[in-house]
Amino acid sequence: MELCLFEPMIAQNAGTLARLCACFNIPMSIIEPASFIIGCKEFKRAGMDYIDKTTVKLYDSFESYKKININNRIILLDTKATDMYYDFIFNENDCIMVGSESTGVPDTIYNTCQYKLKIPMNKNTRSLNVAISAAIVLSEALRQLNYFSVI
Amino acid sequence: MELCLFEPMIAQNAGTLARLCACFNIPMSIIEPASFIIGCKEFKRAGMDYIDKTTVKLYDSFESYKKININNRIILLDTKATDMYYDFIFNENDCIMVGSESTGVPDTIYNTCQYKLKIPMNKNTRSLNVAISAAIVLSEALRQLNYFSVI
Repeated sequence: MELCLFEPMIAQNAGTLARLCACFNIPMSIIEPASFIIGCKEFKRAGMDYIDKTTVKLYDSFESYKKININNRIILLDTKATDMYYDFIFNENDCIMVGSESTGVPDTIYNTCQYKLKIPMNKNTRSLNVAISAAIVLSEALRQLNYFSVI
Repeated sequence: MELCLFEPMIAQNAGTLARLCACFNIPMSIIEPASFIIGCKEFKRAGMDYIDKTTVKLYDSFESYKKININNRIILLDTKATDMYYDFIFNENDCIMVGSESTGVPDTIYNTCQYKLKIPMNKNTRSLNVAISAAIVLSEALRQLNYFSVI
């Protein structure tokens, strides 16, 4: 299980997710370019000393991520998806991927992803914060896999 | 179901949680004093236009919160708790309460709370971000209650 941030734009969100990954002992991948320097002060402030306890792997494109992680299922979180995250059966080789804060992932990537999940929300609203979304789905995956009892 | 922030210190976390509450159509309560002005620019930046879609109720103390919400069970999230959040059976009158970012709730309040839950984490880490914790447990409660199918 791992978490992957596709071209993240907001350092605080990435730092908060690095902290989440440290607490859950889950590796984090970032597909670049990010809109901030990995290790900038906003990233460090949100991630605190947890950043040193997180494995952060960097990739230069979605294609290189896929090539290197050929055995992972990519589970994309996207507000356009139709399958609900809580109905999905996760497995240990899943990578939960979140898109860029303002634009998600490009249509070309969206269309190549086999597994796309949404978090249901009030019809008057557009989206959750990306770190909140990742935490909701990652924790549901870990709950299903009984991971919390061995953390 | 509702979310309650006890004496929150960081406006961005409260704003992010106001956005979560808007998306899930759940009211949010704040027990004051907060360490920021409700409605300050950091709160608004994190909560965006979602703030106008969230019902935010303010209370001047834990005691007044309890008196006014006498039919709610208070479910406190705390790293000192021993019961795991995913083993808990939530009900519709639950209020999920998170403490202050740096200090949680005072011992006197901790000791009066009947229901206290933790999110398991790596022993080398101390705590998750408060907004992340609230989102993980609130979404689990809503999943259990089949709330997402009617949102």
